[in-house]
Amino acid sequence: MSERIEPASRENAATSSKPNPSFESQVADLLGPKGFTRDAAAVDPWLTDWRGRYTGRAVGLASPASTQEVSALLQLCAKEGVPVVPQGGNSGMVGGATPDKTGNALLLSLRRMDDVTIDPQAKQAICEAGVILQNLHEAAAGEELRFPLSLGGKGSATVGGLVSTNAGGTQVLRHGVMRALVEGLEIVLPDGTVLDLTSPLKKDNRGFDLKQLFIGSEGTLGIVTKAVLALVPAIAARQVVWVGLDSLEAARELLLHCERSMGQALEGFEVLPDSCYRTVLAYLDARPPLEGTHAWHALLEFDADREGAATLPARVEACLADALERGLFEDAAIASNEKQAETFWQLREMIAVAERAHGRAVQHDISVAPALMPATLGELERAIVEQFPDHEVRGFGHLGDGNIHLHVLAPAEAPNNWDDTTAKQISDLVYRHVSEKGGSISAEHGIGQDKLSTLEATRDPAALSLMRSIKRAVDPHGLMNPGKLVQPK
Amino acid sequence: MSERIEPASRENAATSSKPNPSFESQVADLLGPKGFTRDAAAVDPWLTDWRGRYTGRAVGLASPASTQEVSALLQLCAKEGVPVVPQGGNSGMVGGATPDKTGNALLLSLRRMDDVTIDPQAKQAICEAGVILQNLHEAAAGEELRFPLSLGGKGSATVGGLVSTNAGGTQVLRHGVMRALVEGLEIVLPDGTVLDLTSPLKKDNRGFDLKQLFIGSEGTLGIVTKAVLALVPAIAARQVVWVGLDSLEAARELLLHCERSMGQALEGFEVLPDSCYRTVLAYLDARPPLEGTHAWHALLEFDADREGAATLPARVEACLADALERGLFEDAAIASNEKQAETFWQLREMIAVAERAHGRAVQHDISVAPALMPATLGELERAIVEQFPDHEVRGFGHLGDGNIHLHVLAPAEAPNNWDDTTAKQISDLVYRHVSEKGGSISAEHGIGQDKLSTLEATRDPAALSLMRSIKRAVDPHGLMNPGKLVQPK
Repeated sequence: MSERIEPASRENAATSSKPNPSFESQVADLLGPKGFTRDAAAVDPWLTDWRGRYTGRAVGLASPASTQEVSALLQLCAKEGVPVVPQGGNSGMVGGATPDKTGNALLLSLRRMDDVTIDPQAKQAICEAGVILQNLHEAAAGEELRFPLSLGGKGSATVGGLVSTNAGGTQVLRHGVMRALVEGLEIVLPDGTVLDLTSPLKKDNRGFDLKQLFIGSEGTLGIVTKAVLALVPAIAARQVVWVGLDSLEAARELLLHCERSMGQALEGFEVLPDSCYRTVLAYLDARPPLEGTHAWHALLEFDADREGAATLPARVEACLADALERGLFEDAAIASNEKQAETFWQLREMIAVAERAHGRAVQHDISVAPALMPATLGELERAIVEQFPDHEVRGFGHLGDGNIHLHVLAPAEAPNNWDDTTAKQISDLVYRHVSEKGGSISAEHGIGQDKLSTLEATRDPAALSLMRSIKRAVDPHGLMNPGKLVQPK
Repeated sequence: MSERIEPASRENAATSSKPNPSFESQVADLLGPKGFTRDAAAVDPWLTDWRGRYTGRAVGLASPASTQEVSALLQLCAKEGVPVVPQGGNSGMVGGATPDKTGNALLLSLRRMDDVTIDPQAKQAICEAGVILQNLHEAAAGEELRFPLSLGGKGSATVGGLVSTNAGGTQVLRHGVMRALVEGLEIVLPDGTVLDLTSPLKKDNRGFDLKQLFIGSEGTLGIVTKAVLALVPAIAARQVVWVGLDSLEAARELLLHCERSMGQALEGFEVLPDSCYRTVLAYLDARPPLEGTHAWHALLEFDADREGAATLPARVEACLADALERGLFEDAAIASNEKQAETFWQLREMIAVAERAHGRAVQHDISVAPALMPATLGELERAIVEQFPDHEVRGFGHLGDGNIHLHVLAPAEAPNNWDDTTAKQISDLVYRHVSEKGGSISAEHGIGQDKLSTLEATRDPAALSLMRSIKRAVDPHGLMNPGKLVQPK
């Protein structure tokens, strides 16, 4: 290493170049043998996103063990002009944690930082970024508390990733998305500065909410190293109900009825059409919760803490009896025990997996104002089937949040290049329609690299321009997760 | 107007100069006779903040009637390099809506934009920025809904001001600050661009939460012209309780007990020491809620919607009986009717006014983590009395939020210059101590011009630097409410 090479120009970092040859040894010196590897067997599994749609390359895999190490590493990357791609459980849906193909970026795993502490009195979890969601759930349960956000990937998704992607899930109706549950954050800024926003103040009016800026920013502004998360009392009793309905409009009426009648006790309200229901039943080889045939199904969960536990079953029964009398649904089954409740939820949670096994499809994660969802889904279905005959439209998900996962299934005889041709035309149609309704092309999965061009094509130029200004201000050399979410331009 | 004068240099706008002579007539042409005045009788009342601590001057008072007019006005101001000071009800506590003394800035009132629409199904209020809080309360009540944020200045405070200052109040414990209640915003950016973020999506993961950036930014990044606000069901029943206690530690124990026992039903938990209690009773010439003498008092409110209304009184009684048995308080009185409940609240709401009438004092609006509040207040009291004998310390407010209003009363014989000398030393002590505890020098009142230097002296340089970067990125010419909250530097 006698030859001195000039550090990469910071100004040009956005179009990255190969790192200085000494960079790797500097990282290795900084992080030690557990903290840095170039071994393909160790690195390669993390270079492809979990949906298998993107594969990149990297200088190596850095796994710092502390905030101080992340800070030193980012200082080094800033000095050397090396782009950084942060990664948690690598279970995102939009390629947001996969580096590009140049191999010039450093992959930064937060998985070694996995310490979690529960503060029962403050009802808070203090988590390092690499804490796996399932482990957080278990730690909270140990104190008769719970972290009220869950999703399919809970066995691999990390707190840092959940914060950076503003994750949602099936409990958003009552408890909100990640944004509503983060009470404090620690972030390492692109120049290595540690920004400590972890002091858990309920009220603080000292200007811009810097914390919120990093939630959902997909690692493009800095690296989340720690989060203080809100916990709620453990569930003392729950009632899980499977409902058969004749339309999505009826489901929305039932939702409004349950909100009026049960208030905060309504924790989940998921919907699926009969086609999804049949697919997932067949995939799981499960017994159907209801006997008859219904055009739509809904899965409802009502929860109570200790105070309300005793009266919950009677309240749910009265609520449903009233709804039946008003003709708001066709049939319903209340899970008679925890095991059956789990089975009901299993049907919902396995839809995506069962659908994937079912055949080729193009998927959309869209939202509109909740009141507009039934009509919007109907319009989309008619427009798609008209333009793309033999395709099948299946919308399922979080009706209460106005967030539907819209899958469009290819006909069996579709050509091999269906994904690159027809599927893209279908997506264009969907995103254009949703944007015209004031909706979002990404309700919960984020933008990553998958939807970057769609975002730029559909979003209000004023919002895009403001995002770019902020990106340039916080990450002037464009080193943080380049090619994702926001192009500084 | 034959003489052409070059527009003010944009680069130097932060240190403003006198506007181009044609500026006033351009504004008058744009907004019409109702929209612009220089008449001293009309303008002067708005040039002093309501605490009477700051008085400024202005080019004139602009009162646009629509977002389009705000947009055109900001385009003009950008072109001419004229600073803009936005103003709602002018009831802020930190001089945030008062222009400086140069007279170079335009005072921009949003008060003419006062349209409010309630959407009962979506449980939302769509408000123009000038809607007065009291009017919003009444509009929501007309639909059996409520906007769950209230404060002393509700008869003058406007929605735009509440958003821009991220207002708090006495219902934060359950419903959160303004930040938690804003579902959509419309903002006019410094160059006149209208940023429409009003589409009420429950879930939207298209990147940075731009909306949150403007909440609490005190008009330094743009002008809030519209807000979509969350409403909750009207209160069907409430129980208001006055409690006497022997210490603030006991009050915190009682708070935790009530949270465990009553969950979401606990809507307010305010505390005041005996000295405040006596001052406000004397000021109002009111009958004391309790007979005996207690070192501390607490005001509790428990609420229920229709479902829980019938059982609320019994639940509150059981909760209090249990607390009494555990020795968590000395005495308590449950308001026997609405009139008495209002009287209890009146005692709390009039503290600030009664204290002001009582004599000279220096006031602090501080927060720490809720668990630290009793100890912190004790430490502060001891430190102040030791260094400033004959001064009296009174802390009251929102115990559940960790937010105390700390007043330090001057002795009767204090010299005339007490405000400029001793009071400042006391504040230094308070803010230093709170900052060391990871707390906030401004829990709910904001920074404005009043606390700008204190913020710069106490806040983490990394946070200050990031705020300045964002300010420069969004308002590169420094025209939006200069001299408040953040100095671009």
